[in-house]
Amino acid sequence: MPTISRKGLLMPESPIRKLVPYAEQAVKDGKYIYHLNIGQPDIKTPEVALRAVKENDIEILSYSRSEGSESYRKKLAKYYNNNNINVSHKDIVVTCGASEALLFLFSSIMDPGDEVIISEPFYANYIAFSVASGVKVVPAVCSIEDNFALPSIDAFEKLITPKTRAILICNPGNPTGYVYSKKEIEKLASIVKKNDLFLVADEVYREFIYDGGTHHSIMEEEGLDEHAVIIDSVSKRYSMCGARVGCLVSKNKTVLKTVLKFAQARLSPPTYAQIASKAALDVPQTYFDNVLEEYVGRRNVLIAELNKIDGIKVAMPKGAFYCIVELPIKNSDHFAQWLLENFNIDGETVMVAPAAGFYSTPGIGLNQIRIAYVLKKESLIKAVHILKEALKVYKD
Amino acid sequence: MPTISRKGLLMPESPIRKLVPYAEQAVKDGKYIYHLNIGQPDIKTPEVALRAVKENDIEILSYSRSEGSESYRKKLAKYYNNNNINVSHKDIVVTCGASEALLFLFSSIMDPGDEVIISEPFYANYIAFSVASGVKVVPAVCSIEDNFALPSIDAFEKLITPKTRAILICNPGNPTGYVYSKKEIEKLASIVKKNDLFLVADEVYREFIYDGGTHHSIMEEEGLDEHAVIIDSVSKRYSMCGARVGCLVSKNKTVLKTVLKFAQARLSPPTYAQIASKAALDVPQTYFDNVLEEYVGRRNVLIAELNKIDGIKVAMPKGAFYCIVELPIKNSDHFAQWLLENFNIDGETVMVAPAAGFYSTPGIGLNQIRIAYVLKKESLIKAVHILKEALKVYKD
Repeated sequence: MPTISRKGLLMPESPIRKLVPYAEQAVKDGKYIYHLNIGQPDIKTPEVALRAVKENDIEILSYSRSEGSESYRKKLAKYYNNNNINVSHKDIVVTCGASEALLFLFSSIMDPGDEVIISEPFYANYIAFSVASGVKVVPAVCSIEDNFALPSIDAFEKLITPKTRAILICNPGNPTGYVYSKKEIEKLASIVKKNDLFLVADEVYREFIYDGGTHHSIMEEEGLDEHAVIIDSVSKRYSMCGARVGCLVSKNKTVLKTVLKFAQARLSPPTYAQIASKAALDVPQTYFDNVLEEYVGRRNVLIAELNKIDGIKVAMPKGAFYCIVELPIKNSDHFAQWLLENFNIDGETVMVAPAAGFYSTPGIGLNQIRIAYVLKKESLIKAVHILKEALKVYKD
Repeated sequence: MPTISRKGLLMPESPIRKLVPYAEQAVKDGKYIYHLNIGQPDIKTPEVALRAVKENDIEILSYSRSEGSESYRKKLAKYYNNNNINVSHKDIVVTCGASEALLFLFSSIMDPGDEVIISEPFYANYIAFSVASGVKVVPAVCSIEDNFALPSIDAFEKLITPKTRAILICNPGNPTGYVYSKKEIEKLASIVKKNDLFLVADEVYREFIYDGGTHHSIMEEEGLDEHAVIIDSVSKRYSMCGARVGCLVSKNKTVLKTVLKFAQARLSPPTYAQIASKAALDVPQTYFDNVLEEYVGRRNVLIAELNKIDGIKVAMPKGAFYCIVELPIKNSDHFAQWLLENFNIDGETVMVAPAAGFYSTPGIGLNQIRIAYVLKKESLIKAVHILKEALKVYKD
């Protein structure tokens, strides 16, 4: 029998999705599941985006340009300009989700054996993209005790080797909800300039900043033109996860040219989804105001309820819609599966994402879970109640 | 300045798309271009598919399952069953185009340094996916003199080394239009069984078989369950290139499980496009009958017209909608660019794909072009006339 690759063996299962079979069984068993495991918002997609697709007049569903349709990129450039990011449509390559943007970027700037420093805990699929590219993840460990603040410059520089090619952050952070301060962005800028590295920022949660905070994009920094690459997506911003439209933004022409070669090989990003994404740019600020108000309310309820549970530790998220929760347990993989298989209150249970998959440092995160607060407040209250009662009876 | 990767440098530009800037300039200069360079059919997308998208009732554009929506995969399995391919929906992973299916498969079955044997000339982006995966392409050279028939078993086996992991064919062939006989499929089956290799068939042109021929899928062969992987797409079948929906089909559970891990990392294939793809499966056989009649007519006109040109050589394509044409020139890259920049008849010129990019063997294909006969007959006649006149004045 022909064998699969070493890379295929190394490829991790998604911590967000690997419990899906157990969830499907739970549903078959008649259980209702509160989905706290995945960042699939329940917010309605803006009507303007949905309508644009319904009213399309396509007769031949053709390829778009490999870098994305020009009209969409031009409108997207304006969105960035309105966010103090000074780019033109020529600095944008539209991709099939932020995932594809990261994959193309990793291949464009790193060879197998190269290293990328990522602030940890991080979005689990960064590991997957690294394995797919043969790249080694070097974690810059942030701690729940420090509310996941960035390590010192010294600590960062100790991680840099001749093989380091890039530093990757997610801002605001998935899974931490951490929002980088201007000082921290400046700190990263000085490190990448001094060491000739790329600075990659996954800014897909840019709009989701709470408590009067401000988002500082890496592309607002002076002197980073050759270093900075933004990864972006419409998925969370407009509750359009199923569109599969993201992009990569940079002023570095060599990076753009190289990414475009990977983009040409896969022909083009999806056409219908680009129509929706272009139309979504017309949503007014009031849309985001309402969405943010909703998420802040959810966050406040979630954190308040969680803090009522004995032995729990949680950092207050300042952005995105996730938090890492430390539980009085030994193995959250087992706990999450047990919740689906063996626990319910009145036929209801909870699905969470075990946090070990958000760390590359072995042994960390085993007693943590990630919660996505993408459900209504009443549901969150019920879900946390279920967690609380479950912890009373759960045995590791 | 941080540097890009060796892989990024090695990544080829698409031979189909690299002339786009010259074409854009030609259009700006007021020229009309007959596009023979790209397999973007002018056939209308089936109304049933377009309508399904227009009439969708989505309120939240959510992720689908990573392996594709269950309802689409179930319907797709029936399509395969009707084509003598005995699979269930569990044997299918839906991808963002055939491109993504190939990328995931290459990563799942090959590590950097491994080798894949591909019958040459081949679809140019196979090289790109190989570079992206660090895999070496070993060409099984087919010749225009033999009408691109498969080399002998002996010739094939000489190419196999301890690093060979797979044989990849495109059936019917892009860029050759070659249709593999049942004997040839059996020959390949015996080679992969004997040498423990994967047999990968890109069957995206399955429906496009002319002159009463039959398509023989590798998955109709007995005893290939662990070896055979089909790559497929809705792009050409339903003139839905912009959907970006393809799939990977196999009975090998380890391959499916591994591909799914790569699929999970990118979350899901596009939702709107899956709606269109599912609906497209309802098109009646008469749709294909009409499309095939149209393509046969185009092919006959194209080949007849081409054969009127002195010094030209062309093999009669039996499927797909491409042919390789040998021209009395030295460098088709230069010729193709020259056509766009320096030649026109009454303001009209032609865009062709230089064929060198469809070969990995250095030096072959330089005097060849690929023509996609995706235009109406009258346009093809005019386009070939332009080619003919151009060749009279062109100097290498």
